[in-house]
Amino acid sequence: MCPTPDAAPATNGRANGTDTSDPSHPGFTGIATQRTHRSSPYQPVGDFLSNVSRFKIIESTLREGEQFANAFFDTETKIQIARALDDFGVDYIELTSPAASEQSRKDCEAICKLGLKAKILTHVRCHMDDARMAVETGVDGLDVVIGTSSYLREHSHGKDMTYIINTAIEVIEFVKSKGLEICFSSEDSFRSNLVDLLSVYSAVDKVGVTRVGIADTVGCASPRQVYDLVRTLRGVVNCDIETHFHDDTSCAVANAYCALEAGATHVDTSVLGIGERNGITTLGGLMARMMVADRDYVMSKYKLHKLKDLENLVADAGMSPSAIFRGGVVQINIPFNNPITGFCAFTHKAGIHAKAILNNPTTYEILKPEDYGLSRYVHFASRLTGWNAIKSRVEQLGLTMTDAQVKLCTQKVKAMADVRPLAIDDADSVIRTFHLNLTADQEKPLLPNMTSEEQAKFEKAEKELAGEPEQKSLDKTVVQETNGSVQA
Amino acid sequence: MCPTPDAAPATNGRANGTDTSDPSHPGFTGIATQRTHRSSPYQPVGDFLSNVSRFKIIESTLREGEQFANAFFDTETKIQIARALDDFGVDYIELTSPAASEQSRKDCEAICKLGLKAKILTHVRCHMDDARMAVETGVDGLDVVIGTSSYLREHSHGKDMTYIINTAIEVIEFVKSKGLEICFSSEDSFRSNLVDLLSVYSAVDKVGVTRVGIADTVGCASPRQVYDLVRTLRGVVNCDIETHFHDDTSCAVANAYCALEAGATHVDTSVLGIGERNGITTLGGLMARMMVADRDYVMSKYKLHKLKDLENLVADAGMSPSAIFRGGVVQINIPFNNPITGFCAFTHKAGIHAKAILNNPTTYEILKPEDYGLSRYVHFASRLTGWNAIKSRVEQLGLTMTDAQVKLCTQKVKAMADVRPLAIDDADSVIRTFHLNLTADQEKPLLPNMTSEEQAKFEKAEKELAGEPEQKSLDKTVVQETNGSVQA
Repeated sequence: MCPTPDAAPATNGRANGTDTSDPSHPGFTGIATQRTHRSSPYQPVGDFLSNVSRFKIIESTLREGEQFANAFFDTETKIQIARALDDFGVDYIELTSPAASEQSRKDCEAICKLGLKAKILTHVRCHMDDARMAVETGVDGLDVVIGTSSYLREHSHGKDMTYIINTAIEVIEFVKSKGLEICFSSEDSFRSNLVDLLSVYSAVDKVGVTRVGIADTVGCASPRQVYDLVRTLRGVVNCDIETHFHDDTSCAVANAYCALEAGATHVDTSVLGIGERNGITTLGGLMARMMVADRDYVMSKYKLHKLKDLENLVADAGMSPSAIFRGGVVQINIPFNNPITGFCAFTHKAGIHAKAILNNPTTYEILKPEDYGLSRYVHFASRLTGWNAIKSRVEQLGLTMTDAQVKLCTQKVKAMADVRPLAIDDADSVIRTFHLNLTADQEKPLLPNMTSEEQAKFEKAEKELAGEPEQKSLDKTVVQETNGSVQA
Repeated sequence: MCPTPDAAPATNGRANGTDTSDPSHPGFTGIATQRTHRSSPYQPVGDFLSNVSRFKIIESTLREGEQFANAFFDTETKIQIARALDDFGVDYIELTSPAASEQSRKDCEAICKLGLKAKILTHVRCHMDDARMAVETGVDGLDVVIGTSSYLREHSHGKDMTYIINTAIEVIEFVKSKGLEICFSSEDSFRSNLVDLLSVYSAVDKVGVTRVGIADTVGCASPRQVYDLVRTLRGVVNCDIETHFHDDTSCAVANAYCALEAGATHVDTSVLGIGERNGITTLGGLMARMMVADRDYVMSKYKLHKLKDLENLVADAGMSPSAIFRGGVVQINIPFNNPITGFCAFTHKAGIHAKAILNNPTTYEILKPEDYGLSRYVHFASRLTGWNAIKSRVEQLGLTMTDAQVKLCTQKVKAMADVRPLAIDDADSVIRTFHLNLTADQEKPLLPNMTSEEQAKFEKAEKELAGEPEQKSLDKTVVQETNGSVQA
């Protein structure tokens, strides 16, 4: 468990070793001064182990992502995705093993020839046959992997630790002799024996592996467990540490973050998280998480305004029209609750939220939609609507009303929302008609095509709202809170 | 920062106070012996603060969920969802404030009259008017909330801490006098001043609040930050601790887990995580996370096989056909990568995974699909296919082939996958036709409707696969690994 004599802290010359030649970011080498934008009084203090301000992304949409049930990428699509990832700014692009099929091998060669800024890796079994084939494709490096858990040793490959270490060393020395980067990863690291795990990492570190990789292959790890394992490993090896987290228990982004806090240097991601089962750390989710930790670093490296296009590209590429699955046609849609790009990620609904957001967006937003080329949306067409939200919408629509009129209008919107669900254009229609009726000779109905039953329900709801003493007094409070003086 | 003199550790009689009357689970009161199913040699040791084996769920689909941009629940739908949540086994159901609208008040009353096993809460502003209205609805308890962060104090309500504490005490004493549970929550706790936060929690604890609540209203918190804050709070208050996490940076499930590790007692969830922006801790994600931590406890309390139906109910309920949003019709689909119920959560694709899964599912699965009434699926129709997966499928289809024949068939499936995407029925069709051709006089094409171009591509791919020496030697390895002896 103790560090080997030649092991040094994570922050010496060789840790982040591949980065020392990259002077583009001041935080990259040595012990970076922890940037502490203490926007909150309760924020963790800087930690010298932490790499949250100098992490690198190994983007695995074209490897892990290809293992997603519904992913069928042809050569042209792979090239399109590789170019988009490179343009976005990822540090590495990882590809399916050339040993998987002849097409995989050709695609690997084709992508290596594109001349991308990102380094190209391929992910192969820890096996000399695979390694020999991989080094011929023109990649910048190999990720070699073998299962070290008792589960995998028993049920998958059946090898003992001595065999694993010896094979690893043979492969590493071969790949290094070709001048390529080499990462040695265990599979299912969190169900592996800790002593076995540290033994093999220590052994490969001694022969000069570029990175060691920790993988939560089954998605069982929890954040503090990740922190502990990475921190322990940080004291054992001198090289960089890559991490790979599956999302079976919804912790893949959080685990990646805790790994970086503990001194990991590289995080595997895929676009929309696609991968085996329900996938791995999402590129977008990691971006969201890291923006909160160090916005300057993230903004300086990655083109966040291209995230949405990148996700759409992959979602469409993975969508095979003939993929009939479990009896139905499967489509990959951007999840409604996707970080950053989910349709509601910047939508605010409750009255109290909407009011504060209109006042100052940071009140209820930790991320700024404009950083991603997106817009904020304040939702106001529901029974939870407050009158400040309606007032804002009235102004957005270019209409003029007194506060008293806005409040009356708000009551009508709320009453209408009690009658039937209101879409944004319904609400706008109510507001516009209300405004028109203020000066018109004859009152128009607030919504067209209302049934007489709906009309009756509306009138009843309106009366109830008008007669609520509590509601009135709360309106007064709201005004007082907003303007600092009683207006109602 | 120090505990008040009358504060005691989390595990005395009053902590989990509402649970002491519930003898149904041995771990509920006092310091539960930490159940340690050490299925992995690398698993964190038990922690006496941890409540991962005795947490409670406050299900907020009908409160936080109603603040989701696309949610429009009518009375009937609310009742249906409340019954389904109760049947699933959630401990509490939280409802929208009766002060939000007359309909909200009536719905609250209606749900209180259903006679559910779950306790009914409503979530109101920390204000006497709201509290008076809420206690009349028949709820079992109130969650009162006020923003304590400088952001909210400046831009939302504008109150100082003395005012907040005095109002809170007035409301708490009123609610307690009615014999109801009362939780006092701060809003945006992680951007609040720590001393302010602990002062107000300590003050409300002294007057006998049932729970205090921590809320990451903007979704900025990280797991270790959550652990630290909850652990600090655990030393300051004697009452239960409720936690509420937004998912803007994809950490909502992980944060809830770390909160429980630090001594929190209650977690807020919603079905599919629906809520403001991209929502909060998902019920399903929390279930997945907690199943790994303590399967026995989760299985004893919650009807997991009803999770999928519950999610479908909410997804359909929230889907308003008239909800035209940002110019398009919005639907809530179950995200493809949803924990447990996402269509691919139990699907395995890569050859190496598929082989091991067939051998022993726990190799690549931390969750068992049968616990949720779901099935495992081993995907084999791609260029990543290994011959063991095809062999398994041959057996599932009730066909008989020698290993040599299975290997030849695998080559054909892989070659076909290089030509065009293969759906499961395409692959089955290839296997069945291959089997038929073994004994037929005349060879049938493996797939109907192949173009001559596709046929040519197929033959080329087949030749390439047959001529790959590396691939052959790997096949040999696979056989050796699986059976412990060389067969090829």
